[in-house]
Amino acid sequence: MTERKKTIEDLGEFGLIRHLTKDIRLKNPGTLKGVGDDAAVLDYGGKLVIVTSDILMEGIHFNLMYTPMKHLGYKAVVSNLSDLYAMNAVPKQIIVSLAFSSKLTLQQIENLYKGIKLACENFNVDLAGGDTSTSMTGLAISITALGEGEKERLIYRSGAKKNDLVCVTGDLGAAYLGLQLLEREKKIFMENPELQPELEGYDYLLQRQLKPEPRADIIAYFREYNVSPSAMIDISDGLSSDILHICKESNKGCKLFAEHIPIDPETEKLAAEFNITPLVAALNGGEDYELLFTLSPGEFVKVKDNKKIRTIGHITEKEDGCNLVTHDGTFIPLKAQGWNAYGRKE
Amino acid sequence: MTERKKTIEDLGEFGLIRHLTKDIRLKNPGTLKGVGDDAAVLDYGGKLVIVTSDILMEGIHFNLMYTPMKHLGYKAVVSNLSDLYAMNAVPKQIIVSLAFSSKLTLQQIENLYKGIKLACENFNVDLAGGDTSTSMTGLAISITALGEGEKERLIYRSGAKKNDLVCVTGDLGAAYLGLQLLEREKKIFMENPELQPELEGYDYLLQRQLKPEPRADIIAYFREYNVSPSAMIDISDGLSSDILHICKESNKGCKLFAEHIPIDPETEKLAAEFNITPLVAALNGGEDYELLFTLSPGEFVKVKDNKKIRTIGHITEKEDGCNLVTHDGTFIPLKAQGWNAYGRKE
Repeated sequence: MTERKKTIEDLGEFGLIRHLTKDIRLKNPGTLKGVGDDAAVLDYGGKLVIVTSDILMEGIHFNLMYTPMKHLGYKAVVSNLSDLYAMNAVPKQIIVSLAFSSKLTLQQIENLYKGIKLACENFNVDLAGGDTSTSMTGLAISITALGEGEKERLIYRSGAKKNDLVCVTGDLGAAYLGLQLLEREKKIFMENPELQPELEGYDYLLQRQLKPEPRADIIAYFREYNVSPSAMIDISDGLSSDILHICKESNKGCKLFAEHIPIDPETEKLAAEFNITPLVAALNGGEDYELLFTLSPGEFVKVKDNKKIRTIGHITEKEDGCNLVTHDGTFIPLKAQGWNAYGRKE
Repeated sequence: MTERKKTIEDLGEFGLIRHLTKDIRLKNPGTLKGVGDDAAVLDYGGKLVIVTSDILMEGIHFNLMYTPMKHLGYKAVVSNLSDLYAMNAVPKQIIVSLAFSSKLTLQQIENLYKGIKLACENFNVDLAGGDTSTSMTGLAISITALGEGEKERLIYRSGAKKNDLVCVTGDLGAAYLGLQLLEREKKIFMENPELQPELEGYDYLLQRQLKPEPRADIIAYFREYNVSPSAMIDISDGLSSDILHICKESNKGCKLFAEHIPIDPETEKLAAEFNITPLVAALNGGEDYELLFTLSPGEFVKVKDNKKIRTIGHITEKEDGCNLVTHDGTFIPLKAQGWNAYGRKE
């Protein structure tokens, strides 16, 4: 019997990236860090240049039926800036490449750009170039963000040490619930276009899904109080997947405590309506754009009074595995989600 | 009567970019050059960082029916490196974002990466990061290339002076004819899958379409002989469109001589078969990835013996317009093509 050939589904998102990039040998001494963190780190002889890029596809990452173009533009920029902040870098420029089908109007594209420009304005970033093209199918948005870093201040995924505390900003799972809400109303609308969408009372969840904000404030706080996390990542795939990145790159394990994972009351309320466990939304929902980082006990004292930061666990030896401890003391191994064939988290 | 609202078609590609970016004010002193040239120019305190980005969409920029994945990956990198060379910069890194539908196999994606890596190898560039995603529809490839530049060596589109000579490398129109050939064979195949494609005798045209090479050799020559073009661009949209970019940014006119525009005999032969005027293919075909530049008479003497470089005209006052002079002395105003609604040149 011959062995079945590996498929993309077998590998999954992160496996595929590893598979495609495992034989890459960096040739230029200026390429300090390539594939494998939130962003690449390049040395051009002055401040370090930190670069990250995302591609967003219609029908996979966004649905134009309920995503206002201006919000979409804003969010597309934010998701990239979030990656730069997760390296402790200061965003400086973005490059925007768009491909759009002829079904989009000029006004829609103008609104998309308005959102892009608003994000540039809010985070002091220049829109410095790009490309526009037509598309046979849906809208594609590819943004590259560049920022400035200093060697001794950059924070990678790989620096977590045993007994470091695991911290997270804001709250988790809200963006995912916001998406569920929009999907439900879309379905109702498709079945009966006369009905008005019921979105009231969930402003926070909708804002988290449609217009997330990157944690520039936390990075500024770190600078002000001279806080040095040992490892950091932004939560784009979900807490579970992202803490596993830190543990894998740091060659460590972790213990997270379910009761300490921050979840907003609005998230809990809507989760109940949908019969979703709020904790599952927090672990696997993604798109929170919060920062997840580890701190040595010595550094931790500098942030312990910051209300925006919650301690949710600590780093262990690799052999202990990566576990979630529930309120009754049960250990549940954490699992990465990444994308599935449909690009959405289950 | 109310005025009809402007549409994307009214604006065209370059009009749309101008429309969307006209109100951009650069905020960071490190952003030396934003939208409007082959690449952005950024100052991070050391060597200048030159950045360019392209997005390639299935069905618009390539057809997987006749484009081998490895060639596609190679060409996607080349088109970006070509933009960096056109600034007289040295490419250092690329960032690759891909979105692919589930109809692609792992092997196809591996082959795409093989082409990307081969281009990296050939031009001493590091694949330093990126993103992969699924796509509901076709394949999308977005590549950002970064390179190193020096302030006094960078060449913009805007420096052409009156009486400068207009020069071009290699020959033009071959990539366009290569595309026509592939399209014809595709059509024949669609009508009768039993027939073998007739591609023999046109190796050069196919190579120009499927595996173009950027002019790293010319940039090396410029360095060796200390040649300083006054303006430069790479020919991606077609000679006509690209010389107009130089003239517009330099606020000048030009006179190009039809008889001096370099066209390969293979291009002429196939053009005759297709009943296409070879000159039209050279002017509007695009995808040649040759360099188009202007030289003061003093600089020109340094390149006049280089067989890879042809002089095709000279720069005039703006008021004289941008014209092609045919062999019988007729003046024909040059016109930009850019993309149309279907993304292909007519």
